[in-house]
Amino acid sequence: MEFTVEQIAAMLGGTIQGDGNGRINMLAKIQDAKAGQIAFLSNPKYENYIYTTGATAVIVSKQFTPRKPIATTLIQVDDPYISFTVLLEEYHKLISFQKSGIEEPSYIGKDSQTGKAVYRGAFSYIGNNVKVGDNVKIYPHVFVGDNVQIGNNVILHPNVKLYAGTRIGNNCVIHSGTVIGSDGFGFAPQADGSYKTIPQLGNVVIEDDVVIGANTVVDCATLFGDSTIIRKGVKLDNLIQIAHNVEIGKNTVIAAQAGISGSTKVGENNMIAGQVGIAGHLVIANNTHIGAQSGISKSIKEEGQRILGYPAFDIKEYFRAYTVFKKLPSISYRLKQLEDRIYGNSQEEKSRTVSESAE
Amino acid sequence: MEFTVEQIAAMLGGTIQGDGNGRINMLAKIQDAKAGQIAFLSNPKYENYIYTTGATAVIVSKQFTPRKPIATTLIQVDDPYISFTVLLEEYHKLISFQKSGIEEPSYIGKDSQTGKAVYRGAFSYIGNNVKVGDNVKIYPHVFVGDNVQIGNNVILHPNVKLYAGTRIGNNCVIHSGTVIGSDGFGFAPQADGSYKTIPQLGNVVIEDDVVIGANTVVDCATLFGDSTIIRKGVKLDNLIQIAHNVEIGKNTVIAAQAGISGSTKVGENNMIAGQVGIAGHLVIANNTHIGAQSGISKSIKEEGQRILGYPAFDIKEYFRAYTVFKKLPSISYRLKQLEDRIYGNSQEEKSRTVSESAE
Amino acid sequence: MEFTVEQIAAMLGGTIQGDGNGRINMLAKIQDAKAGQIAFLSNPKYENYIYTTGATAVIVSKQFTPRKPIATTLIQVDDPYISFTVLLEEYHKLISFQKSGIEEPSYIGKDSQTGKAVYRGAFSYIGNNVKVGDNVKIYPHVFVGDNVQIGNNVILHPNVKLYAGTRIGNNCVIHSGTVIGSDGFGFAPQADGSYKTIPQLGNVVIEDDVVIGANTVVDCATLFGDSTIIRKGVKLDNLIQIAHNVEIGKNTVIAAQAGISGSTKVGENNMIAGQVGIAGHLVIANNTHIGAQSGISKSIKEEGQRILGYPAFDIKEYFRAYTVFKKLPSISYRLKQLEDRIYGNSQEEKSRTVSESAE
Repeated sequence: MEFTVEQIAAMLGGTIQGDGNGRINMLAKIQDAKAGQIAFLSNPKYENYIYTTGATAVIVSKQFTPRKPIATTLIQVDDPYISFTVLLEEYHKLISFQKSGIEEPSYIGKDSQTGKAVYRGAFSYIGNNVKVGDNVKIYPHVFVGDNVQIGNNVILHPNVKLYAGTRIGNNCVIHSGTVIGSDGFGFAPQADGSYKTIPQLGNVVIEDDVVIGANTVVDCATLFGDSTIIRKGVKLDNLIQIAHNVEIGKNTVIAAQAGISGSTKVGENNMIAGQVGIAGHLVIANNTHIGAQSGISKSIKEEGQRILGYPAFDIKEYFRAYTVFKKLPSISYRLKQLEDRIYGNSQEEKSRTVSESAE
Repeated sequence: MEFTVEQIAAMLGGTIQGDGNGRINMLAKIQDAKAGQIAFLSNPKYENYIYTTGATAVIVSKQFTPRKPIATTLIQVDDPYISFTVLLEEYHKLISFQKSGIEEPSYIGKDSQTGKAVYRGAFSYIGNNVKVGDNVKIYPHVFVGDNVQIGNNVILHPNVKLYAGTRIGNNCVIHSGTVIGSDGFGFAPQADGSYKTIPQLGNVVIEDDVVIGANTVVDCATLFGDSTIIRKGVKLDNLIQIAHNVEIGKNTVIAAQAGISGSTKVGENNMIAGQVGIAGHLVIANNTHIGAQSGISKSIKEEGQRILGYPAFDIKEYFRAYTVFKKLPSISYRLKQLEDRIYGNSQEEKSRTVSESAE
Repeated sequence: MEFTVEQIAAMLGGTIQGDGNGRINMLAKIQDAKAGQIAFLSNPKYENYIYTTGATAVIVSKQFTPRKPIATTLIQVDDPYISFTVLLEEYHKLISFQKSGIEEPSYIGKDSQTGKAVYRGAFSYIGNNVKVGDNVKIYPHVFVGDNVQIGNNVILHPNVKLYAGTRIGNNCVIHSGTVIGSDGFGFAPQADGSYKTIPQLGNVVIEDDVVIGANTVVDCATLFGDSTIIRKGVKLDNLIQIAHNVEIGKNTVIAAQAGISGSTKVGENNMIAGQVGIAGHLVIANNTHIGAQSGISKSIKEEGQRILGYPAFDIKEYFRAYTVFKKLPSISYRLKQLEDRIYGNSQEEKSRTVSESAE
């Protein structure tokens, strides 16, 4: 993973001022960069660093005119920040997908196939009748149950667990410790107060371009042939609970420690903040934004709402109500003062009794 | 795992209309079923499917009279839904317990014993002086620490971690990533602002018929000889925190992401919803139902309550108070209007000053 | 791990009454203790047990004068409770660090070094170019990514996952299932409603004396050279979310299921209770105590506050406001009564309209 300045300039469509043969193996901030590294200059506040940087090359704007002599090589582009971002992404991809081959000991069951350029880390486990696509990276301690199917360009970080029957699309990334396909939480109460387990026989389907964080759990659907579904482009953070038979719509983003209860259908392009809880059997409209720690106990039918609270309602109204909530002791006191003035003391007693019986 | 229609009819106490020799290897919904599968018809809405289904057999009520010719074989029973549920459970049990034998590499320490029909998956680890009962299924990447004891018919899904000294009863299921017996969170503050670790030397005891979801944590008790206890029949969902020295009473059900703080005793037959938090050193009475996201800061002494909020109180009262909470800006405005009317503007100022000093 | 009574008395600076040659291999409570065990008597309520205990030795105060004959050996010290605590800690340390050597199969990559007295459990994985200090205990199923550095006296419980580039100081303990260094949750919205992954290229730095519970997640920083930082002496409980670029100040304690969003800086000596959520890009002052389930949406600038609620404010004020919240139906009723009295029925209608338009 080493490139010449010329190769990088070609990739970015930039022009070189200086030595095109310098070798780059890392990206860095301009103030920290050393030989072998490339940085960028976008914000004029950082201009001084370009005269002293140890970077082998710096990406700059075509408009940039040095005020002093410069030791580093310049790559001139239209937008240095965007160009640097492109490099970051390429670098990240290279890093993420660099592992390949099979480390031993690893385990693979009967009738299972893996594609090209697959990495199978030491102590990774693949069950029977599994299909794994091309360029899939299966890190150490990953468990892939029987009959699982995985697309192309998928990264399963160390210790991901895929229960039997899970389906994963293309270009998905799942982080460490996440469990896909564990049993839904279904128990039938019995006459003696105990519970009988309702068998959970469905699976989980994860479509393309899904990213799931660490230590998250997605339960399987209850019935045969049913699936808990994570649609294309969904991003789930860490420590999230997705219960059985839930469906998360396309391009919805859910932050850490949120929980979605059984059979709820979350629409597309939702933004669900951290520690939100959504009750079961609800439908949440597209483009809903739910504020952190909110509790959702009813379906959201109208699209595009911003809500907060428990139960959640319009976020601006929530904050207005909460502003008054903080003053409630004063409001209570003021109400009492008014009552004393209007009713006098004896009347007040009567009023109290009435109001309390109304509670 | 293939059965004839006759074998299944015998198991259900049903009578056959058609070919008893058909072979069944799967269950399915009547609208989806194919050859080799069995379905059921209970709801009359689905009757049309029985004339077109590809199922090898369909379970029907004894009262069912076809209106058209039927290609599939019928098994007539008293209640087709219940019979199908029985099949589902048998199927689930077969699937769950089908693994057996020892996959290599796996690790077992000194002086450890395992019973009959035990499965030890590849990369599973059993420490020293461990006792494992009959028909226990230890999936890949499971860790069983030293001196652990496990009963019969227990399933430890991939990556369950049992710290040293844990006790597990019979017929328990623990899902992936769950940690049993990690150190309780105990630290003694020191004069310099730092904390000294309080050694956690107890263990965890899990009684019979307990089911625990994925990525849940149950900490060990602090003192020697003390245990964090999960009583018979308890069902815990995913991502739950059970702190040191907690006791969860018989047949209590706790939903995902709830947390029970140290030394709290939860009674029997509680239903604790998702994301509930219970403070430490409390006692929660039997048959308490706690609504989602509630915070419990005091013991619940009276049995059979339904509570919600933070701190939680009667759920109906909570919703009545919350209904008014949403209107607080209006209430604040109306109170101010009354004050203006009663006191006039100068008086109001005075009242304000008084009420604020009362806050 | 067996000591004579004499050895223990010497360690505690105590004097022996009885047989100094008795052999001790365990600690126990005085009411439960058996031969081979040592207990302590501090609370006079338990004095009766000392005349009947099976313990080989009991630690007592120098002031203790038996009222009856005693069979067990006494070790007299200044403060029996503190002496017992010292023993507990020594015992715990012995237990925790007792494992050593390499169990097979285990994996270690290229150019990686481990110090003295290191334990590498079966199925543990160490990547390339890793540095591990002395007396480090790497339990089974631990994953240590490439370029990780670990100090001395560190315990990584089964299944800890350290992503590439993580730095761990000395004397740290990390419990099972915890993930350090997973990708931060960063996605850039695109015109078509989808999201592009922002590469996460920083790492996590954990300083000395940090304890982290089970199934917690600490994400890496976003940019090159940046770190998510857990400062010296921090204690994190189970199932906590620490997002990218967060910094947790020295000796701060965070209880289970709390979540800290990206780029927030938490001060020193904070106490953050369970299920608290803190929004991103905030600064929390030193010595802040945050009550359970609170939501923090603004920076806390003043040190030493005790806060609660969502959004959180002074804890005493919260409880006073909440006391009135519970009575809101009554307050609403009383306000209406006053309005009826002042305005009469027709006026009231008008007032209503006005107030609602003000909402």
